[in-house]
Amino acid sequence: MDCIFCKIVKREIPSQIVYENERILAFRDITPQAPVHILIIPKAHITGLNDISRDHTELLGEIQSAAKEIAEKENISSSGYRVVTNCGKNAGQAVDHLHYHILGGRKFSWPPG
Amino acid sequence: MDCIFCKIVKREIPSQIVYENERILAFRDITPQAPVHILIIPKAHITGLNDISRDHTELLGEIQSAAKEIAEKENISSSGYRVVTNCGKNAGQAVDHLHYHILGGRKFSWPPG
Repeated sequence: MDCIFCKIVKREIPSQIVYENERILAFRDITPQAPVHILIIPKAHITGLNDISRDHTELLGEIQSAAKEIAEKENISSSGYRVVTNCGKNAGQAVDHLHYHILGGRKFSWPPG
Repeated sequence: MDCIFCKIVKREIPSQIVYENERILAFRDITPQAPVHILIIPKAHITGLNDISRDHTELLGEIQSAAKEIAEKENISSSGYRVVTNCGKNAGQAVDHLHYHILGGRKFSWPPG
């Protein structure tokens, strides 16, 4: 397995982990685009949103709940934050392991890229 | 209830609905920022990601599954798409009813706003 996020899960690559449970890991983006920029991933390898099945429904919901909890911990709940996932080439998906970005600590413009 | 998205759910305001099930509705954004720009909402009124509880986990997962299915229907699965939710002022949340944007049909830049 050559996936950089799987290596982060296995602690083969260091990362600044901010949240972890049995099925989910969250860590700081190494090229942050905002004062707070965290990635939330499932520990299991799922390439992207195109590759989810009905079996992943609860896991996907837990990722959204984790986003809310992380925003609270990072003190961006009241000021606001954007949650983004990129799927495929047009969206600029950089790592082929499903990940949700949480960005906060500044104002965000529209459209989102 | 003065929420515009609740009114769309109740068909008090017209919209171009592209997907519907018991708990979720998806319709085209009236100010599209990409060739495909759809909003997915829970039919129940939830203000935003800050207001979700553990009871919403499955619903939130279903919304992500709906995003995948809608991308397939709209023929943006293979070219790629971005899924975004804005929570609060800094993110520019425009309607206080939880909604996820699916955007596709063009390239997206980084950062996402």
